[in-house]
This record gives sequence, C-alpha cells and structure tokens, in this order.
Amino acid sequence: MDHHGSPSPDARPEVAVLGGGQLGRMLGIAGIPLGVTTRFLDPSPDASASAVGSLVVARLDDVDAARRLAQGATVVTYEWEGVPADTVRALDGCAAHPDPRALDVAQDRLAEKQTFARLGIPVAPHAPIDTVDDVEAALAVTGLPAILKTRRGGYDGKGQARVDDFDGARAAWLDLGGVPAIAEGVVDFRRELSILAARGTDGATACYPLVENRHERGILRTSRAPARVAESQQDEGRSIALRLLADLEYVGVLAIELFDCDGQLVANELAPRVHNSGHWTIEAAETSQFEQHLRAILGWPLGSVELRGCAGMVNCIGRLPDRAAVLRVPNAHLHDYGKAPRPGRKVGHVTVVAPDDDTLEERLARVHALQQDDG
Amino acid sequence: MDHHGSPSPDARPEVAVLGGGQLGRMLGIAGIPLGVTTRFLDPSPDASASAVGSLVVARLDDVDAARRLAQGATVVTYEWEGVPADTVRALDGCAAHPDPRALDVAQDRLAEKQTFARLGIPVAPHAPIDTVDDVEAALAVTGLPAILKTRRGGYDGKGQARVDDFDGARAAWLDLGGVPAIAEGVVDFRRELSILAARGTDGATACYPLVENRHERGILRTSRAPARVAESQQDEGRSIALRLLADLEYVGVLAIELFDCDGQLVANELAPRVHNSGHWTIEAAETSQFEQHLRAILGWPLGSVELRGCAGMVNCIGRLPDRAAVLRVPNAHLHDYGKAPRPGRKVGHVTVVAPDDDTLEERLARVHALQQDDG
Repeated sequence: MDHHGSPSPDARPEVAVLGGGQLGRMLGIAGIPLGVTTRFLDPSPDASASAVGSLVVARLDDVDAARRLAQGATVVTYEWEGVPADTVRALDGCAAHPDPRALDVAQDRLAEKQTFARLGIPVAPHAPIDTVDDVEAALAVTGLPAILKTRRGGYDGKGQARVDDFDGARAAWLDLGGVPAIAEGVVDFRRELSILAARGTDGATACYPLVENRHERGILRTSRAPARVAESQQDEGRSIALRLLADLEYVGVLAIELFDCDGQLVANELAPRVHNSGHWTIEAAETSQFEQHLRAILGWPLGSVELRGCAGMVNCIGRLPDRAAVLRVPNAHLHDYGKAPRPGRKVGHVTVVAPDDDTLEERLARVHALQQDDG
Repeated sequence: MDHHGSPSPDARPEVAVLGGGQLGRMLGIAGIPLGVTTRFLDPSPDASASAVGSLVVARLDDVDAARRLAQGATVVTYEWEGVPADTVRALDGCAAHPDPRALDVAQDRLAEKQTFARLGIPVAPHAPIDTVDDVEAALAVTGLPAILKTRRGGYDGKGQARVDDFDGARAAWLDLGGVPAIAEGVVDFRRELSILAARGTDGATACYPLVENRHERGILRTSRAPARVAESQQDEGRSIALRLLADLEYVGVLAIELFDCDGQLVANELAPRVHNSGHWTIEAAETSQFEQHLRAILGWPLGSVELRGCAGMVNCIGRLPDRAAVLRVPNAHLHDYGKAPRPGRKVGHVTVVAPDDDTLEERLARVHALQQDDG
C-alpha cells in the first residue's frame, strides 16, 4: 500500500480460497499469469489445489485456521458451497466475495426455492417438511410422485429420495434422518441446462451462454456449450442470472442449474462459485470462468464471454483415460486434477472444441470411447 | 513402471527443465492440467518458474546439480539455448529432448549459418573471424556495411557491432574481446518474421504460421500472428522449419527467426526451445507452444495448430502496466512473470486476440498506450 492507502501498481494480490479441490486448483492456475497468488484451506493434505498454492490443512468450520489463511490476503473466496457461512463471517477485516448471504441461500433448499420464487423465477412446486406431520400437507402442494430433499447438506444426488405415495414419503423422510427437508414436485424436463454469470464489484455483469448438461447417478457427466436452444431461451437464462446477481449483490461467478420444460426454464439450484458445467470456458470462451471469478472478486474489469466455436466437456470419473489416447483426439484438452483413482471420484475432465455440431459430436464420441468410468 | 517396463496409465510424468525463467514458468503452467510436474535448475533463487515447480538453485554448468535435477525425471529439456550442451550430455541415463546437437548449432553462429546453408536455406553472406588477420577476408565476403557477432554468447542484441569500414571492423572485433566471431552481410529486410514448429518422437511435425516481429534495441517488443504474407511465403517458412526439424532429428518446439527480403525468406537464427514470438499461441492457437513442447518431448501426439482469430503480443519491459487497465482492453490477456521491476527486463507480456486486423490494431494501440517501458 502507498500512503494513499491504495495498492501499488506492482502489488500482486493474494486470494485466500476456502476449499482446495479441483475448482480451487483451476482458480490457482488462472491466477498465475495474472500475478495472483492463491492459498487454500482444505481438510486433506493431498488437496488437488495444493499443486498451485500453499495449503492450510484444517476443516472448513475451523475458524482459527480460516483466520490464519485470510491473514494478509487481498480477498477471501470459496470453491465449495458447503463452506460454513459462519466461517466466512468470522473473518471480519478481510473482504469476502461473494457475500456469505449467497452461501445461506445455496445451503438451504427452502431458502433457495423461496429466493427463486420471490424473484419471479419459475421453480417446481415445493413445501417444507420439518416434522412428520408436515408430510401430508407438503405432498398436497407438490403432487405425486415427489422428491424429498434434506434442506441442508445434499450433494451429487445424496440426501434425496423419490417417493410415489404417502407411506413411502413418511418412510423416506425418516430414512433421510428426520431432518428439516423439502418436498419438491417432479419436473417433467426435456433436458438439464445451466448458466454461469459474473458480477464485478462495480455492478458490471457478464453471462456465458446456457449449457446443456447430462447427469448420471447424480454426478455431472457431460456439458455442451452453447446449449442448442432458441435465442429467446438464452435471453430468459440471462434474465434469471441477472435477477439473482442483482438481488444477492453478488460479486464473482454464480452458477444456476435449470430444467428445460418444453421451452420454459425452471430453476433447480444455484452454486455460489465456479462450476463443473463451466469448465469448457477454459478453452472455448475468451475468458475462462476461473479468470472471470478472480477478475470479479479483485475489483478488476470482467472479461469477454465470447465463444471460440462450440465445446463439449466430459468428466473423468474414477480414473483418467490414457493421456496419449485423449490427446490424439483433435482439439481435445486434458485436465488432470492430480488425484488418486477412486470409484465415483471426479479425477479430471476433457474438453473438446470444434467449429460445428457434427464435428463436436464425432470428437466427443471418441473421448467417450476412451472413458474407463467406474463411478 | 509396471513389470513390462512401460509406465502405468496413471503415472504422472516429471519434466526436468534446465533454466527457470518465464519460458520455464509457462511450460510449468501448461503442464499442470496435463498432470505433468516440472522442476527447474536456475542460478537465481527467485527464478520466475519457481512459482510452478520445485527449483534447484545452481549454475547451468553445474553438472552435479543438473544430475540432482534429472534424478527420477521422465525427460530433461531446456528453456534457454545457452544451456551448456556438455551439461546435457553428462546426464546419461535420462532422455533429453531436444538432442543437445541443437544446442551445439544454436550456440555457435558459424555452425548455425553453416547448417542453414547446408540445407539450402537462404542465409546472409558470412565468414568466420578467428584472428585479426581474418577481418579483411571476411569483409570481402560480406561487403560493407557488415555486422560482427561473437560466435558464442550473444543474446538480445549483445555481442554485436555494426561496422562501416575496415578500420572500424578491426576495432569492433577487438572491442568484442577478440574472440571467435563472424562477419555477416547486412540484410536489407522489410520486416522480421519467425516460425515455430514442433516434431514428436514419432517424427510427426506441426508448424504454426509465420509471425511478424518488431525488435527495438535488440529486444523483441511485439509479435503479430499470423504474419500478413502470401500463402507461398507461409509454405516457404514451413519448408525451412521442416528441413531443420528433420536434419537435427529434433524433438520439441523449435523457433527460427527470419528476415523478409522483398518476399524472400532469409534465415537469421534458431532457438531450440519455446520462444517469445510464440507466446500468442497460449490464447490464439488450439494448442499453445508450451503444451506442444511437452507433448513432443513426452512422446505424446502433437496438438492442433489451428488459429483462433488473429493475435498480437506486446512485451512488458521494465515494469508491468496497470493490471486493471490492461484487462479493460477487450480480449487482452495479461501474463505476469512474477519478477521484480528492472529497466530492460522482460517482466510480462500482453496478448490481444481479435477477429480481424483492424480490430486487432485498435486493441494493440490501447495496450501500447498503457506501456511504461523504460527498457
């Protein structure tokens, strides 16, 4: 800092990241050319992000450890929506982006649905279940079949149960631990979409186009950008994202998962962070979601979200395919997260770029054929 | 290694790099997503590449230190053409790419010129000067004015002198230390070009297009890709690169600096490594020169050299421009080498991508206006 209190032009920002998984790792990689140093808090000494920055090994609810991490940092951010908002709030004296209010919303499925509804964003019928006596009334709102979800702590399809009748719903709720939950009407969707958008400290915004996603067993398998939708639907996606960014006074990259119900977008959930369905931006957008997030939280101008052709991303679950075989596929880009193989674990991804749909499909088919998924 | 002696599919290669400057740093960044670990040998404990890999601090002619670096590495490579070929040759038992023969050629301006000539690549008239008695005969070959260059050790315009007459040439040669030198005819060129090309362990090759370069006071200031030349000249550039790659049985990325003499290409020098005039490939080619070099030396397939629009690169000499101001220029990408400011030092670069020439020129003008060059 100079005597006016503003950073010197040669100062290099240091970003403290709560969480040190692959999202942190890719934030760190994006930071290096920008002169941004990243450091991470993660419970695992083998955290994926430790390859690109220093690591404090501790649980994410360890406020003392988080304070050590934040010491001297330019800004605090997170790469996992499960970071306790209280940990972030305890770091007073250090700027945190996005505001922990986004964590409050993302961590509570009821608050999330209520936020969508309040902003006029279409959402599935839903109702809270706090006691066993709430089950019947909730199902009256949602109809049957329905999905019960714990209000907190669900991830990658865990903490959920599909129910077909009242008795099944009672049993399923008890099975979920009898914890506060919501019932949600089953949405008859054609496909899953998502949109990523960013807002800077100056209120400027930038939206990437809608992306098509395919999940299997609760885990994202592939993303395709841009989604093959009408321009009016892209506009609707952007409108949803912009309403949320403004309402949450959000700073950083925000991801919103949506259902495409015969042309109407229905919001499913949000993630206040960079997102697996945005990895394609590394190669196929002018500014990657990771650089965009850093630009936003550091108070720098947002970057262009122009596309460079169309792109498909395939998650590598369990173990990586053979490197040389992947690199033989034209315009395939391998991303190894540095993790040990383990069934069901996201250990890397491959992004393929192509000038048109047909070429993309052909190249993606070659990548799929190399997958050794066991998850 | 498994019991068949081939690496397991999950093995992550480790690349030992002789030199740890910004080229090493960018090789290291390119390695991270590929699961490639990089380590560096450099005399400076603050080496730019130390941000992305471990560092052995020692001189590059310290064979023991180089052996420690190479211990257990998958392959050895270099990011500086001044690495003593003897250091590389002393590392028997570890594969080294490119072969140190390329260093022999690149480190000796006479051998370099002779190699070009032997391969039928146009080159300026030249003659060796080993003793003061050679000066007259050499100038008879080159004509006047001429440029005297030490055979070894020149870099960024050092070790050179332009001479206009015989007496000046004698004095200049003594000024250069009276060391083995060459006299070179002055080439009347319209502009400086370069070409980067790669060859894999399987002999496959890939050439990036010709690039236009502008030097000032011996230091590269800007590069522009692709060069605005006729397709026949692109073909000639590729032909020159392919002849050198084949002759040197080269593995890795090779850079060749050329003069454009009214449409004819005249070779100036080569660099057996990734090159400053190829930094634009990070954003504007499907595969960056850094990833390409790693793919080549690790025996992986070469990547696509397709372009994503046109690109201009501006070196930041002395100190970096204001980060936020750079990032406000559309499609500008900042690369901070993590160095302290110092007059004449390359501390970073900015690459600008654009869909067409006019847009590129406009954006580059904005970047130039931000430069605080003092070099």
